[in-house]
Amino acid sequence: MNKYDLIVIGAGPGGYIAAERAGHEGLKVLIIEKENLGGVCTNWGCIPTKSLLNSSKLYKKALHSEEFGVSAENVVFSLEKAMAHKQDTIDTLRKGIAYLMKMNKVDVIMAEAEVIAADTVLADGKTYSCDNLIIATGSTAFVPPIPGADLPHVLDNKGILAVDKLPGNLVIIGGGVIGVEFASFFSNIGVKVSVVEMMDEIIPLMDADFTKALRKNLSKVDFHLKARVTKIDGTKVYFEKDGVETALDADMVLMSVGRRPITMGLEKIGVDVAPQGIRVDEQMKTNLPGVYAIGDVNGKSLLAHSASRMAEVAVNTILGKQDCMRYAAVPWAVYTDPEAAGCGLTEKDAKEQGYNVKTASSQMRANGRFLAEMGKKAPGMCKLVVDDDSGEILGVHLLGSYSSEIIHSAAVMLEMELRVQDVKEIIFPHPSISEIIKDTLWGL
Amino acid sequence: MNKYDLIVIGAGPGGYIAAERAGHEGLKVLIIEKENLGGVCTNWGCIPTKSLLNSSKLYKKALHSEEFGVSAENVVFSLEKAMAHKQDTIDTLRKGIAYLMKMNKVDVIMAEAEVIAADTVLADGKTYSCDNLIIATGSTAFVPPIPGADLPHVLDNKGILAVDKLPGNLVIIGGGVIGVEFASFFSNIGVKVSVVEMMDEIIPLMDADFTKALRKNLSKVDFHLKARVTKIDGTKVYFEKDGVETALDADMVLMSVGRRPITMGLEKIGVDVAPQGIRVDEQMKTNLPGVYAIGDVNGKSLLAHSASRMAEVAVNTILGKQDCMRYAAVPWAVYTDPEAAGCGLTEKDAKEQGYNVKTASSQMRANGRFLAEMGKKAPGMCKLVVDDDSGEILGVHLLGSYSSEIIHSAAVMLEMELRVQDVKEIIFPHPSISEIIKDTLWGL
Repeated sequence: MNKYDLIVIGAGPGGYIAAERAGHEGLKVLIIEKENLGGVCTNWGCIPTKSLLNSSKLYKKALHSEEFGVSAENVVFSLEKAMAHKQDTIDTLRKGIAYLMKMNKVDVIMAEAEVIAADTVLADGKTYSCDNLIIATGSTAFVPPIPGADLPHVLDNKGILAVDKLPGNLVIIGGGVIGVEFASFFSNIGVKVSVVEMMDEIIPLMDADFTKALRKNLSKVDFHLKARVTKIDGTKVYFEKDGVETALDADMVLMSVGRRPITMGLEKIGVDVAPQGIRVDEQMKTNLPGVYAIGDVNGKSLLAHSASRMAEVAVNTILGKQDCMRYAAVPWAVYTDPEAAGCGLTEKDAKEQGYNVKTASSQMRANGRFLAEMGKKAPGMCKLVVDDDSGEILGVHLLGSYSSEIIHSAAVMLEMELRVQDVKEIIFPHPSISEIIKDTLWGL
Repeated sequence: MNKYDLIVIGAGPGGYIAAERAGHEGLKVLIIEKENLGGVCTNWGCIPTKSLLNSSKLYKKALHSEEFGVSAENVVFSLEKAMAHKQDTIDTLRKGIAYLMKMNKVDVIMAEAEVIAADTVLADGKTYSCDNLIIATGSTAFVPPIPGADLPHVLDNKGILAVDKLPGNLVIIGGGVIGVEFASFFSNIGVKVSVVEMMDEIIPLMDADFTKALRKNLSKVDFHLKARVTKIDGTKVYFEKDGVETALDADMVLMSVGRRPITMGLEKIGVDVAPQGIRVDEQMKTNLPGVYAIGDVNGKSLLAHSASRMAEVAVNTILGKQDCMRYAAVPWAVYTDPEAAGCGLTEKDAKEQGYNVKTASSQMRANGRFLAEMGKKAPGMCKLVVDDDSGEILGVHLLGSYSSEIIHSAAVMLEMELRVQDVKEIIFPHPSISEIIKDTLWGL
């Protein structure tokens, strides 16, 4: 009874997809989750942040749609109700995952797992053996050694998603995707927000033209770049920039400086663990036969959808099917207000990789639907990065409304290695903001 | 001075794109437009309807976002302001087209054109000659011979976009895209709307599963199918269904039963004109050498983006470049509330064409972003039509939020003849509603 074809540790978007796919293929599968089905993504990441960001965007629209013919009075944002909806969304999705496990005959244990050997796992006091083991334990927020980082009003992504009162002043330490999304949410609903970032720009994966535009359009957020937080002292956050120390008021602090893989001490059983995560090959295989590592824990691509694809690759490999993980066409989206999204290389990356780069950019305000729905003053742009020798599209970058729902087509284009000429012959629906890709590309 | 490489008649999304592309390639181009740059699409079609529909969706959201934490009082829809924004959008886009003409050195004459011969056009009292002629005159609303159809409160798409007062009761004759979009707009802002349609279902290009769901979700609209309007008498619209006559109250009537090509009497100079439009081949060539017909006037695909692509094909043909118009991957979208969109074959079409059809469907409420932004009760679904022999994707059909911005990827997939397996290996961003395509496809 305790012998499985596959044991999966961690039920996030890597783990539960692996279990579902493997169960669907007839493998006997056990998944072990220490906290909640769905992992960080469903419970304290992608989903709750998108739920709250959407609520804040609805609030902003209810306040500011006079231009479009809609006025309202006494517009109120209820944190309690927005949080309740967020929780309801999470609960529904968790139930959905439980249902998927059941449908695919996957056994589920809610407990902390301990890996005894490559084929032996301990959970809830019992021992389970397996032919294959997938480590999908994810990552956790990194807390840097800053004095005051352990104060009760200093929260990570988990903590800030559980607040029941809005802060007056919020300081966000770290201007990556998580930090900037929370900055957008809290500033949309009227909280004074500052972001302190050590690097010279926010969101490293974004094209430089876009980070600048995004910061400009998050106009109510104070960004402090190249700034290092030195201490948190009561309701003051101190940072140093160009040798000058400044204090910011903060009755709440969000710590979002990075993520650390949860590697469970696997080096003890001989797994090759690097600082950024468990080392894997293109099939998600670790150095130990039958042991795979997918998702944040391998540090290759800290995105939920990368984890899910890695899950498929690992399961296909276990099943003896040819598959491999490719990173050239992984899209990403930031659900700020305005949204941003991208897929493939930035101009800088492409040049560094030695391509003969050609780019084209255009403004969304020339797009019919964008003008109709967002007006003349809303921010929006598209930039394409192309290999001028082959005509192949290397990168697609978007800022503005709907970007997150448009960008998947770039994943299709890049994965299929389409050239500019191929896309010129494709018909995009009018009027849609997606047309911006075709319109930008036309001049190339 | 009056000799051109190319004369284009009509400055809609077919004509102005043809002029822009040809001018960009160095041809000496004249475009002649009798009314407004942008044609029906910009002035009385795609753009103004999307502007108004968006305003009505903002109104509905301002009224009904309590679930998401946003409440408001005294929410008011101002038709005057919504119409002013709509007009501002139109004006901006017209200016944009004028600018594009100027940038590409295209001469513009605002006048009615008369074609004297395949190489001779009369406009504004002057004669112009050309090597190539593109007819892009579009279509106009068809007025059926129903008694009372000429009453002043019976409007077409042009008339209804200029109203300055909301009707109490609106009857829409014809349940195609135009009729149903106006039904969605007016019912969203509180007008009592009835749609009377002769056929057994609304919107012919939509999969049968979707038309039913769309009607159900336009819950405040009364649909009368298989119903033939017999007369309009004052504020009563009479229709006959199953031998029974019924009268509907209507202080405004929208006539949207179909479109007729504007063929300018071209048969007089020997152009082959069929009832549905000017006959053309895959390069948009008519039977007369040097004469092309693009867009609604050829009756092949009455969509703005089809017209634009036909423009490119015609211009490339003129330039001696290989190109041809394909219709298998033309996406379409209906911007109702909820939206619907599709690309490629419906299940019925595919079966009729002899494919060994396999389909897969799924509900959007299993999608994380959809749940977070729309809640559990909102309608949304995806259906894929696949050739079970080759695995090729034949059709993608969507109903629900963001459908119109997602569907362009289906155009990429279909144009590139992707198989199910190809798309399985593509990474879609999480959380996005676009993932529904991948999730639906997974089971295939």
